[in-house]
Amino acid sequence: MPSPQVLASLRAFVAERDWDQFHSPENLAKSIAIEAGELLECYQWSSAPDQNRVEDELADVVTYCIHLANKLGVDLDDIVVRKLEKTAEKYPVRLAKGRMTKYTEL
Amino acid sequence: MPSPQVLASLRAFVAERDWDQFHSPENLAKSIAIEAGELLECYQWSSAPDQNRVEDELADVVTYCIHLANKLGVDLDDIVVRKLEKTAEKYPVRLAKGRMTKYTEL
Amino acid sequence: MPSPQVLASLRAFVAERDWDQFHSPENLAKSIAIEAGELLECYQWSSAPDQNRVEDELADVVTYCIHLANKLGVDLDDIVVRKLEKTAEKYPVRLAKGRMTKYTEL
Amino acid sequence: MPSPQVLASLRAFVAERDWDQFHSPENLAKSIAIEAGELLECYQWSSAPDQNRVEDELADVVTYCIHLANKLGVDLDDIVVRKLEKTAEKYPVRLAKGRMTKYTEL
Repeated sequence: MPSPQVLASLRAFVAERDWDQFHSPENLAKSIAIEAGELLECYQWSSAPDQNRVEDELADVVTYCIHLANKLGVDLDDIVVRKLEKTAEKYPVRLAKGRMTKYTEL
Repeated sequence: MPSPQVLASLRAFVAERDWDQFHSPENLAKSIAIEAGELLECYQWSSAPDQNRVEDELADVVTYCIHLANKLGVDLDDIVVRKLEKTAEKYPVRLAKGRMTKYTEL
Repeated sequence: MPSPQVLASLRAFVAERDWDQFHSPENLAKSIAIEAGELLECYQWSSAPDQNRVEDELADVVTYCIHLANKLGVDLDDIVVRKLEKTAEKYPVRLAKGRMTKYTEL
Repeated sequence: MPSPQVLASLRAFVAERDWDQFHSPENLAKSIAIEAGELLECYQWSSAPDQNRVEDELADVVTYCIHLANKLGVDLDDIVVRKLEKTAEKYPVRLAKGRMTKYTEL
C-alpha cells in the first residue's frame, strides 16, 4: 500500500512543488507527530467529533507515513505484517485475551 | 489500502485477542499519537537512527491508522486522495513552489 | 517558575553530563512531544492509571519545558500569564461559559 | 511552581468559564500532547521559527501541565526534582558524559 495510482499522485504533488528538499526522514517523522496531534484534537473534549474532520486529519497522518516509507525504501504493507508477527509473539492469545496489560507484565 | 490480506491479518489478530472492545475511535486516535511519539523518539538526538527501529515504529503508527479507518468505515486510499485535492487547492504550484510557507501566508 | 533551586539542579545535571550541546530548541521541542506521548500512554487504555507513573511522565514533559524556556531566555510564569490574557480575549466568559467550542465558532 | 499568583489566575480563568467539568486528567493529558504537537509545528520545516509563536505554544503546554498537576494534587517542582534524582541514577556522569545513548545501552 498505497495503490500505485495514489503513490503516483502523492509523488507528482511533491515534485511539482519542489518540496522533496524538505522531506528528510526527520522532518517527516516530526510531521507525522504534528498531524497525529491534530487528529487527537478532534477527540480533545468529545468522543464523537465530526467525521469529515477526523477523516481529513487521519489522511494527513497517513500521507506523511507514505512519504516516510518512500524515503526509507520500504512498503507499508510489508512492515505492518512484519511488525504484526513480532507483536503476536509478545502478546500470545492465551495470555493477552481480553486485556490490555503491557507484554512486560503479562 | 492496505491489501485485503493485510487487513484480514490485522482483523484476525484483534479478534483472537478480543481486543475490539478497547478500539474505540478515541483510543485509536490516542494510540496513533503515542506511536508517533515513539517514531519521533528515533530522531530525538540523531537524524540517522537505526532503520529497523524506524520501520517498526512507523508500522505501529500505520497499524493504528488502519484500525481507525476500519472503525470509521473509510478506505485510506480514498481519504488520502480526497485530502490531496484539498491541499492542492490551498497550495497552488505557482505560489508554493520551493517553499514551505503556510497557505494562510502564501 | 521553577524555583531557583530546581533550576540550578537541572542546569547542574546537564552541565555535569556535557549535554547542553544536544539541547537545541528544536531537539527540546521534539523531546517535549515525545514525553507528552509517554504521558498520554498512561491513559491509552485506562482513565485511571498508576499515579506514580503519571507524575514521572508529567515531570519529564515539564523538565524539557524548563530547558526550552531557558534556551529562549524567557520565564515560564511570564509566558503563561501573557498567553492566558490572549486566551481570555478569545474566550470571553459570556460566550465560552460551560462549553468547549473553538473560539472561531463561538 | 508556578507562583501562587499565576496558579490563582489559571484557576480563576477556569472557574469563571465553568470548564473544570472538562478537565479530567485524561483530557488534560490529551491536551498536553495536542499542544506539544503545535509547539513542534513551529520547528516542522525550520530550526529558527518566530520566537513569539514558540513562546505561546510552550505556554499552552505548560498551562495544561499546571492544570494536570493540580488535579493530581502534586507540585511541579517536587515531581521534577524527584524525577531528576531517578534520571541521575540511570545516567551516571561517568557513563553518560557527552553522549545521548539510552541508559539501557550505556
